[in-house]
Amino acid sequence: MEEVNVVQTKNGTVSVASAFAGHKEAIQQRDHKFLRIAVEEAYKGVDCEDGGPFGAIIVCNDEIVARCHNMVLRNTDPTAHAEVTVIRKACEKLNQIELSDCEIYASCEPCPMCFGAIHLSRVKVGNALLFLRFSIYLYLLLMLKEFH
Amino acid sequence: MEEVNVVQTKNGTVSVASAFAGHKEAIQQRDHKFLRIAVEEAYKGVDCEDGGPFGAIIVCNDEIVARCHNMVLRNTDPTAHAEVTVIRKACEKLNQIELSDCEIYASCEPCPMCFGAIHLSRVKVGNALLFLRFSIYLYLLLMLKEFH
Repeated sequence: MEEVNVVQTKNGTVSVASAFAGHKEAIQQRDHKFLRIAVEEAYKGVDCEDGGPFGAIIVCNDEIVARCHNMVLRNTDPTAHAEVTVIRKACEKLNQIELSDCEIYASCEPCPMCFGAIHLSRVKVGNALLFLRFSIYLYLLLMLKEFH
Repeated sequence: MEEVNVVQTKNGTVSVASAFAGHKEAIQQRDHKFLRIAVEEAYKGVDCEDGGPFGAIIVCNDEIVARCHNMVLRNTDPTAHAEVTVIRKACEKLNQIELSDCEIYASCEPCPMCFGAIHLSRVKVGNALLFLRFSIYLYLLLMLKEFH
């Protein structure tokens, strides 16, 4: 059950607010802040002509550990999606192959390869990836169809 | 319908053979040859302590373009699976981000990340990956379960 706050304001009116709703809003603001940086990375990638318009960042204790964008064209590497490159960068920086203390924010819904990389690195996914579990099924079905 | 060959042998007996079966056998021999090399790469990776026991090769016109093994520990990179590293290597060598003229052979069933990389690079999968389309569903379900 949600916790309820009763707050008396300066002009004497009484507000009844949900603490859960406030918490949710704070999370959304935090998500928004990091997602904005991920999107900035996507713009940067397009400006540099490094690859497609996709950016991603990895955050640990509210600090950005690594930020990167799609580097497919720059590196001549079809696996150099923003999420994969940022995971590589963060692992190199932290000198560990596991990012369970970190969170990833991406400017777009990850593709199955990136989803796999996210899973393998154990990096947490933010609220921004809520639709991942639904879209992955559809995407995979389309992929598998090509092999038939 | 299968083509049928009638062959007279030296001792006068007549054999009836299926050309299709012969073709299939030839493919299997070819697959076996390349899979053997992929497995050799897996052994090599373990000897070097570069990562897990997984190897992969990319073949173009019956010639090996690139061969590599799991480099997760060596590169401190959870995305450096054999299939991903060999795709990167082949793309770098051929200076192209698309490998539709090539085939990949892996010592093990690829994980969803590697499957995604295979799809993105357009590299063909051999007969050795026949069970891929079935196993991928199960693996993905297990992965998604962790996010619930």
